[in-house]
Amino acid sequence: MKVLVLGGDGFCGWPTSLYLSDKGHDVIIVDNMSRRKIDIELGVESLTPIRPMDERLQAWQEVGGRSIGFVDLDVATDFCELCELISREQPDAIVHFAEQRAAPYSMKSARTKNYTIRNNLCGTHNVLNAIVETGLDIHLVHLGTMGVYGYGTAGIPLPEGYQTVYFKKPDGSMQEREIIYPPDPGSVYHLTKTQDALMFQFYNKNDGVRITDLHQGIVWGTQTDQTTRDERLINRFDYDGDYGTVLNRFLMQAAVGYPLTVHGAGGQTRAFIHIRDTVECIRLAMENPPAAGDRVHILNQMAESHRLRDLAALISRLTGAEIRHVPNPRKEDEDNELIVKNEKFRSLGWEPVLLEEGLLDEIYNIAQKYSDRCDKNRIPCHSTWTRSHQPGIPEEQ
Amino acid sequence: MKVLVLGGDGFCGWPTSLYLSDKGHDVIIVDNMSRRKIDIELGVESLTPIRPMDERLQAWQEVGGRSIGFVDLDVATDFCELCELISREQPDAIVHFAEQRAAPYSMKSARTKNYTIRNNLCGTHNVLNAIVETGLDIHLVHLGTMGVYGYGTAGIPLPEGYQTVYFKKPDGSMQEREIIYPPDPGSVYHLTKTQDALMFQFYNKNDGVRITDLHQGIVWGTQTDQTTRDERLINRFDYDGDYGTVLNRFLMQAAVGYPLTVHGAGGQTRAFIHIRDTVECIRLAMENPPAAGDRVHILNQMAESHRLRDLAALISRLTGAEIRHVPNPRKEDEDNELIVKNEKFRSLGWEPVLLEEGLLDEIYNIAQKYSDRCDKNRIPCHSTWTRSHQPGIPEEQ
Repeated sequence: MKVLVLGGDGFCGWPTSLYLSDKGHDVIIVDNMSRRKIDIELGVESLTPIRPMDERLQAWQEVGGRSIGFVDLDVATDFCELCELISREQPDAIVHFAEQRAAPYSMKSARTKNYTIRNNLCGTHNVLNAIVETGLDIHLVHLGTMGVYGYGTAGIPLPEGYQTVYFKKPDGSMQEREIIYPPDPGSVYHLTKTQDALMFQFYNKNDGVRITDLHQGIVWGTQTDQTTRDERLINRFDYDGDYGTVLNRFLMQAAVGYPLTVHGAGGQTRAFIHIRDTVECIRLAMENPPAAGDRVHILNQMAESHRLRDLAALISRLTGAEIRHVPNPRKEDEDNELIVKNEKFRSLGWEPVLLEEGLLDEIYNIAQKYSDRCDKNRIPCHSTWTRSHQPGIPEEQ
Repeated sequence: MKVLVLGGDGFCGWPTSLYLSDKGHDVIIVDNMSRRKIDIELGVESLTPIRPMDERLQAWQEVGGRSIGFVDLDVATDFCELCELISREQPDAIVHFAEQRAAPYSMKSARTKNYTIRNNLCGTHNVLNAIVETGLDIHLVHLGTMGVYGYGTAGIPLPEGYQTVYFKKPDGSMQEREIIYPPDPGSVYHLTKTQDALMFQFYNKNDGVRITDLHQGIVWGTQTDQTTRDERLINRFDYDGDYGTVLNRFLMQAAVGYPLTVHGAGGQTRAFIHIRDTVECIRLAMENPPAAGDRVHILNQMAESHRLRDLAALISRLTGAEIRHVPNPRKEDEDNELIVKNEKFRSLGWEPVLLEEGLLDEIYNIAQKYSDRCDKNRIPCHSTWTRSHQPGIPEEQ
């Protein structure tokens, strides 16, 4: 299949582009380098030494034996160029990672809130609008987040997007309806993903656009079978307070001899998935598109759930790092359960990598190997959810 | 109270500004004149001869005896200026009409779809973000639409925003939850209002912003007690295919001797409210803000529901105009019922103007009086919901 990967330079986009190319798909990366520019703005760098795009693509040509195209374009602002690109390339699928994806960054300042809203909503709308405008039948695969559901499941497993509920009629009888699971976003970033979901429903209903929305857990791990083939292909590893996920920051803290900082009592439960599984799930989703006329497909893309204090305990056991509890900069429940259905990907034969299997590899081959590149001052986070919250270290994407 | 009226030059914004001023409030209009500029783009004009803003304000000073301030500012793009304005003026309330409000215009082209998304979402977000940024406790009153609910009530009255539903637990027992009524937008315009609702929930939850969201029916009528005091204060009347609501176009067709064009069988049922009631409801909402810590207040701002074919029959009876059925340019059900709760405004003592009472006045004092200003070629609509739809005449805002 021919596929455009929007945001193909990023943490998930780059290994996905290589994986799809390796599996024989024809890949064109579309990216405006915004993720690298935000690094400059924040004064941070990927722990791993990522290479410029032309060098990455040259290396892949050499070791992967395949070309990947590249177009420097801002999906959120360059609507005409996007339409022209789609008309010219006639892709079968578009994989859309081109959104600002860090909750702490989205809450950092009035400016980053506005940027996240404008970039994510105008970007996603431009993609949908361009698909309709070009009149092509293109399958859109969008990376969403488990976070759209909020974090309170109250004894009922989180479904894959759609939830059967009952309305009470005036005569007291119950009426069954299937609804989109009521969203409960916890940051401006999460908010945009819940707003995206409404756009998908509308463009699917009005124009029949075929859409798969992947509600992904927190991605951990760095490398895939493709990115390890040459150091020039290495994937990024973020450990800073804004873009570093909880697990990466724990690993980094362990590697450089810092205590693992847990927010509050660490009762927050989150869903996780390894980057190797992200790329495989995206391939599965792309190769199994909705049929013409189908509603939006929504799949939970996660392997397992863990409480953050259990995660810290596991890493402490593996590395001997101590654990320190700090005030939580987020406005959220101290404790939550998270029971998630992921039967759709399971039914496609998916067998995920679990945390217990991959953590040691991350510690030795990434966190320790590149620890001389770590700027310890960048690990703490200065984004707080409201003015009355204490700065601390946020714990997920 | 001191109040900023965003979009205070528009069809609802202008009479609201005068009404609130007349009731003793301190009003500052904020507008970028976008509605008048869209008229230029569409090659149409208000049927009524609306005057430039400075002349309007001068006239109000003369006949109303009060000053209204005016700031020319684009809420969707001028974030810093908006923050400065709010900090300087310290309003008690902000009434927010500054969104592109025509469903047909929002579906007209790829460009108008993008404009509606960007203008409405970035605008509403800028307002919320600015309220948080300035740290002031300002009540935001937002004009939303009944259309967020979709048009299928299936025997259950539409609630005022929140709906009690039941989730089935794994053990078969039912769990009660209160959710936002599941949205079902029918155009890009309606889509933005459902996305606004998510922003309101988030900013209310995270920052405690006090918000009232008014789910308004289709507004009819032109004049209020204030706009009739001097012809320089006259309100706009849109009859073109994009901005003219179904009722205004019926009235115009009757006045100029055209058949009333009904889409399909005319079984679509819609909610209506007179412009005099719009301004009164906004005053009631503004003067009765949510208490600190309250969730978002959502009120249905509508007086009555009518099937479109019944509306056409009523006007035909009053004027002798014939009725013609034309293909529907919209993608919607041919028939729907609409049962709506509006107890909140009723409980504040509101007694609405009903259609039967006000229609003749509209026909004689607006449609016929200014019929020489009508460009009949502008009544039909060229916006269709998808490429496979026939152009026709859309029937509501």
